[in-house]
Amino acid sequence: MKTTTASITALAERVQYIEDELALRNLMVRYGLAVDCGDTATAVACHTGDAVYVVSAPRSGRDEADSGATDLTLKGAEAIGNMLDSPLHQSLLPCCAHTVGPVTLEISGDEARATGYSRLYNVKESTPHLQRLAINEWRFRRDSGQWRIARRESRLVGEDQAQALLRQAAWRPRATKTGLG
Amino acid sequence: MKTTTASITALAERVQYIEDELALRNLMVRYGLAVDCGDTATAVACHTGDAVYVVSAPRSGRDEADSGATDLTLKGAEAIGNMLDSPLHQSLLPCCAHTVGPVTLEISGDEARATGYSRLYNVKESTPHLQRLAINEWRFRRDSGQWRIARRESRLVGEDQAQALLRQAAWRPRATKTGLG
Amino acid sequence: MKTTTASITALAERVQYIEDELALRNLMVRYGLAVDCGDTATAVACHTGDAVYVVSAPRSGRDEADSGATDLTLKGAEAIGNMLDSPLHQSLLPCCAHTVGPVTLEISGDEARATGYSRLYNVKESTPHLQRLAINEWRFRRDSGQWRIARRESRLVGEDQAQALLRQAAWRPRATKTGLG
Repeated sequence: MKTTTASITALAERVQYIEDELALRNLMVRYGLAVDCGDTATAVACHTGDAVYVVSAPRSGRDEADSGATDLTLKGAEAIGNMLDSPLHQSLLPCCAHTVGPVTLEISGDEARATGYSRLYNVKESTPHLQRLAINEWRFRRDSGQWRIARRESRLVGEDQAQALLRQAAWRPRATKTGLG
Repeated sequence: MKTTTASITALAERVQYIEDELALRNLMVRYGLAVDCGDTATAVACHTGDAVYVVSAPRSGRDEADSGATDLTLKGAEAIGNMLDSPLHQSLLPCCAHTVGPVTLEISGDEARATGYSRLYNVKESTPHLQRLAINEWRFRRDSGQWRIARRESRLVGEDQAQALLRQAAWRPRATKTGLG
Repeated sequence: MKTTTASITALAERVQYIEDELALRNLMVRYGLAVDCGDTATAVACHTGDAVYVVSAPRSGRDEADSGATDLTLKGAEAIGNMLDSPLHQSLLPCCAHTVGPVTLEISGDEARATGYSRLYNVKESTPHLQRLAINEWRFRRDSGQWRIARRESRLVGEDQAQALLRQAAWRPRATKTGLG
């Protein structure tokens, strides 16, 4: 019986990892959907209370003179919610699309990390434009069985620090598990 | 023995959910690939017989005067196949790319729902252009173990009804399962 | 006991398939991330030693006169690494983004295949441009438990041979597994 129980336990751990990966992939996309319709409550619920959001050149594509601006750092889910409710962000709605991905993802217990692209589109006079193309590092934490975004760093493609994020991207090619588990 | 059997059954249900999610994600992409090469038989096979496809401003990006057009509603897989075989759609080939995603997805038994973006590109004189950027709600149904698209509603980013789709987007942050299942 | 063992074995095989699919999806994206930061060692490690990379019109979007060029065929991971280290490729950095997907994917034992889109963006004067929009067929092989890219064919949307790749795209709608497995 011990072998059977151990096999089931090991299999359940593998299933848990997979469920976590799919939940995290849904979470990142869900955030973008919430942001695009001004559903700030859901967007905030995607974050831990102490979440940090670092975004470089936040007005990029909207304000040419700002392209060399310093980073915007938001600390805490409340600050993130305030940013989403701000006139600057609200002025994007409803003609924007925050599309996340593709990203690589790896999980270690109650923490996880993803690295990849995001594209912000806006629509002007019925024509969609790619406004911002960024490299992101996402960090997640599981609290009470719930995955949330604990930190996101979003940098424009071309920035030195975007290159740094890419060099330490989540997930590396490795041997897959085999056998019964 | 009862505990073991129950554990295996619970685990199998979790695995089934995951297989369903991956099958549905493949299905949405597969539809786009079929459409882009005029493989109407496969595109139709992705749908239930009574599938409904609602698309707003279907000529958007191709015919400026049509941007305020009423919705196109196709009822039944046959009607969808006829649209794909129509001169209007065929005129897009082979220089188009229907790229689906990212989307969130949730499954409830033999029904499922996804919400997210799609982008239709066309290539003119060797240069790719983003022609249509849309918000989609997909509904799926499983018949005889086979997932198919039962309904798709595709609306341009910026439309009021696109905002409505986003506000009821599939999937919300929630606690993950734990334990042996 | 036999039934229990058989159930666990069948379930483990299903979990293995899912892990493989997620590993392969991470692998394709990881390749793009490595390429975008000049991490040639990781990009090469994503490939089998005898990997083949066929890319049509490799200078497309960069050199108009080249749009009718013959295919570039690279044979072996070393040749792929040399291409990535070449002045032509390096000239794209750091202002490029190789975004892979969406793709369909199917696995058969130690081989797998994916079909789908890729988009190469470059950033010029703070504005992102879509430089190359391609249809790709990826073939993968598992060696020593490690999935790697064994062959990739990348063709511009609009090419006859891109249509051929689409017509034989990976994955078709089919019945899902049911029961305990």
